[in-house]
Amino acid sequence: MSLIKRLNTLSNDFRPALRGLLALDAAQDESIERTSADILKDVRARGDAAVLDYTRRFDHVDAPDMAALEIPRREWQAALDALPGEQRKALDAAAARVRSYHEHQQAQTWTYTEADGTVLGQKITALDRVGLYVPGGKAAYPSSVLMNAIPAKVAGVSEVTMVTPTPGGVRNPMVLAAAAIAGVDRIWAIGGAQAIAALAYGTASISAVDKIVGPGNAYVAAAKRRVYGTVGIDMIAGPSEILVICDGSTPADWIAMDLFSQAEHDELAQAILLCPDAVYLDGVYAAIERLLPGMPRADIIRASLGRRGALIQVRDLDEACAIANEISPEHLEISTERPEEWAGKIRHAGAIFMGRYSSEALGDYCAGPNHVLPTSRTARFSSPLGVYDFQKRSSLIQVSQAGAQTLGRIASTLALGEGLQAHAASARYRIDPTTENTQS
Amino acid sequence: MSLIKRLNTLSNDFRPALRGLLALDAAQDESIERTSADILKDVRARGDAAVLDYTRRFDHVDAPDMAALEIPRREWQAALDALPGEQRKALDAAAARVRSYHEHQQAQTWTYTEADGTVLGQKITALDRVGLYVPGGKAAYPSSVLMNAIPAKVAGVSEVTMVTPTPGGVRNPMVLAAAAIAGVDRIWAIGGAQAIAALAYGTASISAVDKIVGPGNAYVAAAKRRVYGTVGIDMIAGPSEILVICDGSTPADWIAMDLFSQAEHDELAQAILLCPDAVYLDGVYAAIERLLPGMPRADIIRASLGRRGALIQVRDLDEACAIANEISPEHLEISTERPEEWAGKIRHAGAIFMGRYSSEALGDYCAGPNHVLPTSRTARFSSPLGVYDFQKRSSLIQVSQAGAQTLGRIASTLALGEGLQAHAASARYRIDPTTENTQS
Repeated sequence: MSLIKRLNTLSNDFRPALRGLLALDAAQDESIERTSADILKDVRARGDAAVLDYTRRFDHVDAPDMAALEIPRREWQAALDALPGEQRKALDAAAARVRSYHEHQQAQTWTYTEADGTVLGQKITALDRVGLYVPGGKAAYPSSVLMNAIPAKVAGVSEVTMVTPTPGGVRNPMVLAAAAIAGVDRIWAIGGAQAIAALAYGTASISAVDKIVGPGNAYVAAAKRRVYGTVGIDMIAGPSEILVICDGSTPADWIAMDLFSQAEHDELAQAILLCPDAVYLDGVYAAIERLLPGMPRADIIRASLGRRGALIQVRDLDEACAIANEISPEHLEISTERPEEWAGKIRHAGAIFMGRYSSEALGDYCAGPNHVLPTSRTARFSSPLGVYDFQKRSSLIQVSQAGAQTLGRIASTLALGEGLQAHAASARYRIDPTTENTQS
Repeated sequence: MSLIKRLNTLSNDFRPALRGLLALDAAQDESIERTSADILKDVRARGDAAVLDYTRRFDHVDAPDMAALEIPRREWQAALDALPGEQRKALDAAAARVRSYHEHQQAQTWTYTEADGTVLGQKITALDRVGLYVPGGKAAYPSSVLMNAIPAKVAGVSEVTMVTPTPGGVRNPMVLAAAAIAGVDRIWAIGGAQAIAALAYGTASISAVDKIVGPGNAYVAAAKRRVYGTVGIDMIAGPSEILVICDGSTPADWIAMDLFSQAEHDELAQAILLCPDAVYLDGVYAAIERLLPGMPRADIIRASLGRRGALIQVRDLDEACAIANEISPEHLEISTERPEEWAGKIRHAGAIFMGRYSSEALGDYCAGPNHVLPTSRTARFSSPLGVYDFQKRSSLIQVSQAGAQTLGRIASTLALGEGLQAHAASARYRIDPTTENTQS
């Protein structure tokens, strides 16, 4: 049994094989949907009391009141102080780079004035309050705290409230330390649909937020989908993906390990390599075979590569770019000479890693750009998480008296065409009666 | 029975009264959800044949094949040529202004280079294909075609496909003319959940799009919500809203008509006036009483004002701004002296109309900014429809060999802390062995 599929774009069954590889059953589990909806409803009705009940039931944390579920700032600070020096330095350096990159995303209010004095523009404001969900247990990643909280703070969000389940009362010090570095404002030891409900609707203890971001399990995802509209949410992420385009000159071990670094996330993660050189693909296959047994997460990698991975021989790098646009991957590595040339042909990808030194793992932690990226072909229409997700725009319209003469006539004509007479009358009231007869 | 509620922020029951006024039952109808899901599934399975069946059943249009449902460009052009001169001029002028405003929203790709040669940035690309839903019958607004299609074309979307139901085969020439002006690429005479399905999944005749925008009935909204993820969608709009802040010096008739212009949309539309001057509020009430009987849509206005409207006496304009932020209205008119001062205090609103001459109706048609705006308090976290809704970003990461030495160590430390050894190994491969011992 082969470790990873080998495909060739010249073969007749390439198209159906590629479709099969990309297919992912995204069916939602009805029972999860129902449970999650019930929890939302209950927390909306009973507030803190319901949150305490579910936390008792699901996390086995028996708190007497909500105050006992707030993780006080001194505990985050203690976690930060207790970090080994190298980890502390790495986390600080990563946070500084992420902050510096995201500062480039700051949008500015703009206006312009027309000849008749009318001013038009767009005002940028930050969201007031943001909720950040951080999973408990093994999927609790400090890097994810940085990637979600820092753009919110750069955007100017005044209150970032983090929620994170602590099954059995166990709190993750790396996550708390990252929260302290990222500038989180409050942390509650709650999780699941009950935490999403508390953030969306508010309770006596927890202020309702305007938007909820961060990854979570199926119950959390279902709850987020359901509260969308009451609050904003980020994308519901699918399994992580990497697509590597290689010209056949990067050391095969490097590329094999890049594929592993995606595959080790999850058995449903997807790692695909496109290369015109069959001999090179053989080399990467051999590297996979040789390196795999040494990996601590070999079982997950083996399952992911076997089920959803592929080494694909393409005719040339142009064809590789065309396939990349079709796949619209979350992560795209262009491991070639003059990578910027090929990057110019890419229209759809969450993040583009250019050159042999730009391994995707650098982007996951510390290059600067966000690691929360569109998956499952959604890069066709959506973007990495960024400062823009924590700001919104308001149109500015200041029509001058002179402007109202011109605009009033246009609006009135169109409003009457649509049968909206109050619109027309409201516009015409602003037309100066002395200009009425001469111009209308 | 009063035509519109009178409230005062000083009264004890103001808070519950305001909450009651803003409350809106957004319960989704289960039978609509189910019907819409069934139609999506059927079109996904049977393609064009299913679209033809539903169009026969719901629109009573018995087309022999899909070609018969495409509205050819010569028909739009004929509709445009047949427009009365004044309407044609108004539509052209509105389109030009909307285009010019939205050109200011163009985002640019940016990069920056760090001292060690590492390049970071963000690439902007347009969506490839966008679907535009335009309702049939009385809610078919040409202005809405302009507001949805123009930002997509300014963004650089290469194919905008419009769908619009034509019950009984009746096509709306104003809508076709607007499509011609706005630069729409193809038009199909189909609607409902079947049109959303065709756009989201594609059929033999209709190419799948990347995003679907535009208003529709409850079946269309349910279908859009369900295909979200496969394609992008715009916001699902609630009833339209206007909040007017007035200092008491704008002619009362103007303000009454501004309230009407929102109320005439829909019995659930919301029109609220905030003013510190009780005598002025009496004047607006009197104006409402006097002007209402003359309005062609008086019944709708009466229902909307009676159920969801209010004239609210505030202590001062500062309090008015605080309430406006709480309400986060779709449209906010600041009908005062020095409106820019008060606008500075507004954090949440879809569009801010400043000064006595900036009636909201001008923004609906021709001021330039988009009239597709966040409703139901979603201005707390979302924005007007814009060019940014038809573009997306890709992160650019080009790490230099020198950069990989620094970043590799940080990433490797953090990856090991998260138990992701392949990530760490992939980062460390890029560290030059000659620098390994001295710096690590």
